[in-house]
Amino acid sequence: MNTYLLPKKKAWTALLERPTQSPELLRSRCEEIFSEVTRNGDKALYEYTKKFDQTQINSLKVSQKTINGAGKQLSKPLKDAIKVAATNIRTFHQRQQQEKEIITTSPGVHCWRETRPIEKVGLYIPGGSAPLFSTVLMLAIPAGIAGCRHIVLCSPPPIHPAILYAAKLTGVTDVFTLGGIQAIAAMSTGTESVPKVDKIFGPGNQYVTAAKQLAQFQGVAIDMPAGPSEVLVIADKSANPDFVAADLLSQAEHGPDSQVILLTDDKKMSKAVAKAIDKQSSALPREAIIREALHNSKAIVLPDIRTCIDFSNAYAPEHLILATRDPDTLIPHIQHAGSVFLGHYSCESAGDYASGTNHTLPTNGYARSYSGVSLDSFVKKITFQHLSAKGLKKLGPHIEIMAEAEQLMAHKAAVSIRLKKIKPSRLTNSFAPTSGP
Amino acid sequence: MNTYLLPKKKAWTALLERPTQSPELLRSRCEEIFSEVTRNGDKALYEYTKKFDQTQINSLKVSQKTINGAGKQLSKPLKDAIKVAATNIRTFHQRQQQEKEIITTSPGVHCWRETRPIEKVGLYIPGGSAPLFSTVLMLAIPAGIAGCRHIVLCSPPPIHPAILYAAKLTGVTDVFTLGGIQAIAAMSTGTESVPKVDKIFGPGNQYVTAAKQLAQFQGVAIDMPAGPSEVLVIADKSANPDFVAADLLSQAEHGPDSQVILLTDDKKMSKAVAKAIDKQSSALPREAIIREALHNSKAIVLPDIRTCIDFSNAYAPEHLILATRDPDTLIPHIQHAGSVFLGHYSCESAGDYASGTNHTLPTNGYARSYSGVSLDSFVKKITFQHLSAKGLKKLGPHIEIMAEAEQLMAHKAAVSIRLKKIKPSRLTNSFAPTSGP
Repeated sequence: MNTYLLPKKKAWTALLERPTQSPELLRSRCEEIFSEVTRNGDKALYEYTKKFDQTQINSLKVSQKTINGAGKQLSKPLKDAIKVAATNIRTFHQRQQQEKEIITTSPGVHCWRETRPIEKVGLYIPGGSAPLFSTVLMLAIPAGIAGCRHIVLCSPPPIHPAILYAAKLTGVTDVFTLGGIQAIAAMSTGTESVPKVDKIFGPGNQYVTAAKQLAQFQGVAIDMPAGPSEVLVIADKSANPDFVAADLLSQAEHGPDSQVILLTDDKKMSKAVAKAIDKQSSALPREAIIREALHNSKAIVLPDIRTCIDFSNAYAPEHLILATRDPDTLIPHIQHAGSVFLGHYSCESAGDYASGTNHTLPTNGYARSYSGVSLDSFVKKITFQHLSAKGLKKLGPHIEIMAEAEQLMAHKAAVSIRLKKIKPSRLTNSFAPTSGP
Repeated sequence: MNTYLLPKKKAWTALLERPTQSPELLRSRCEEIFSEVTRNGDKALYEYTKKFDQTQINSLKVSQKTINGAGKQLSKPLKDAIKVAATNIRTFHQRQQQEKEIITTSPGVHCWRETRPIEKVGLYIPGGSAPLFSTVLMLAIPAGIAGCRHIVLCSPPPIHPAILYAAKLTGVTDVFTLGGIQAIAAMSTGTESVPKVDKIFGPGNQYVTAAKQLAQFQGVAIDMPAGPSEVLVIADKSANPDFVAADLLSQAEHGPDSQVILLTDDKKMSKAVAKAIDKQSSALPREAIIREALHNSKAIVLPDIRTCIDFSNAYAPEHLILATRDPDTLIPHIQHAGSVFLGHYSCESAGDYASGTNHTLPTNGYARSYSGVSLDSFVKKITFQHLSAKGLKKLGPHIEIMAEAEQLMAHKAAVSIRLKKIKPSRLTNSFAPTSGP
């Protein structure tokens, strides 16, 4: 971890920089796989799985029997923990539901929004060393609350039983043994086995990220652009350097490209955290990854905590931990972040697994313009409007003038032809919407 | 308009097809202009404006004096109409604000979301034959309610005074005389005059659409993918064929690639609408455009209105007009649409201009996964969480088990190190968040 003491404002630009991502470079590879999958469907998927995952699978679709049996391979404490996390995640996301509210914008003019689920969603769960069953909870639970009819999950072989257990617990419709670019291609184009979905969610390596970008050109929506995971910790004198070090390390273990930043107004704190990192990291199994991630990481001493917040806003971190005495007082000043952890006992791990908030969050500065995944990510809001004859009679002349000024005379005519036919007897406002989803 | 009588279900696929868009083809042209603008800044912008808009401009930025004077060039009735529309749009979008709600997911674990504006937004307003000042209202009003600090507007020369008047009325920060790919490039990369923005909104031709796609690779968010405008009208025997024809024509006049579909359960209605279209269109100034758009359009007679709704859901139209006797009863069955107009007096023109709903809506089938522009489009929601020592003591062991099962031992350690240090005296839950935006 490199330390920077009271850098001048003009030095910030360099400190705020993230390593450049170039998923663009993987584009031609993605295009090749997408076109193979479009042409040959399942056959291409079996071949890619053999080639890239070194696995000969008999069926892309995981059988209900295998899914039902997965729980037997897990310990009771793990199943209990998954259930506790699922309950909290459900509680938090359920409260994101919105009531329909009919708004009378003008007499006889009623406008409102109604929520409808995105019908088919695809969840990508990476494989590899860590079986991310927590991500199944974070995506499938809001999808279920939204009412998505098809919740498709793809994960490369071998799929860990905890992923299958979480899938069953959360109502995933279909699970496919399928990873990488070919999984995204299959959900984007549809094959004999894998349904084409409307929106694809979930993390992944650079290949999956590039494939999701390409999927957008096929008319499929995605959750958000992805980048390496990040944490920014702001610590004042009240912080416990061991806690701060542990939080920084928990981010660093995600991968060698993880971004880890410590901001403090206390030079001693910076030193104490560095010391604690050295001590703690040698006891961790992923020490090599951690060392590499820390190599790109920064500890920055700034004049005061408010300046730390300014720096954080300029960086727009995915995770922001406020290890300060009165974190609440800082909340109004936070402008850009994915998820914020307040105080000394709110470690990022809590939000990663079980507090109830979503862990699918904007990285790479996208917190400036994107929210993390929420119930909103699985629905769309349709606007409805009803104008009574009386409502149109009052508003219509204004519409006619505006349409004419925009030189859209047929837009004007659609109003004029109605205004001409409105009889005085029609001028009651009889609107009483009764139905809804 | 081609008429299809009771097509079989397997014939639907062909009827549901939209013409293929390929903004991909314009990619290399966009890349060239983006890199020129990145390299040469304002100088490149002046040159492109001279080349593509045949206009030598003295200043990219429109002066405050010009903006302030624009209203004098407009008639009072037009200014009044714009104000009425602005009031309705403001009323509807203001009600989309959400209160912060703190949720206790587990004892001592408090989670909530807070809304923050996207700081810098860019609005693109096309030029050409129709000066779309209505789009200024639709984008700048929610941006203002959201609290966006910089609201940048680009429009090609000459900018119509109604666009400047609407910009002033809605609190646009800066207006630039700048159109096409170069406008999107400037807002994506930033130049001496034009600020780099976080998100770009607004309609445009195929060049602007392709440029917005490329902007996404520069880390800039966009409102939604774009395509030609569409209307689908469902009419039963109660409909007035003249009204239906006028609505179809108002969509057709947008451009030769506009999509216009009529669904009805009444063969006579289909014929009457076709006749009314012939009669009305000859009186419209954009008759040539309309003829071309109608060439690709369809009137489809289906067995009943519920089948019409099924067809509409499969098509996912941008605008859906229910010209039926009891449109309210159909609402629960509508799954995919951008904006829905209920009954015989709710013409699309009302929503296009003045009823209060937004007219920036998903086209090209994107209504399956995207909402139209709303207040949500101009904000992001940051999650916050506070765990008391007591809260972590209860939830922590579950987090430890899950982190270990995902083989993320540093995530586990961040909890363990805290659990070890929690003294019984700390086990009060003192959380009382007081602040917020």
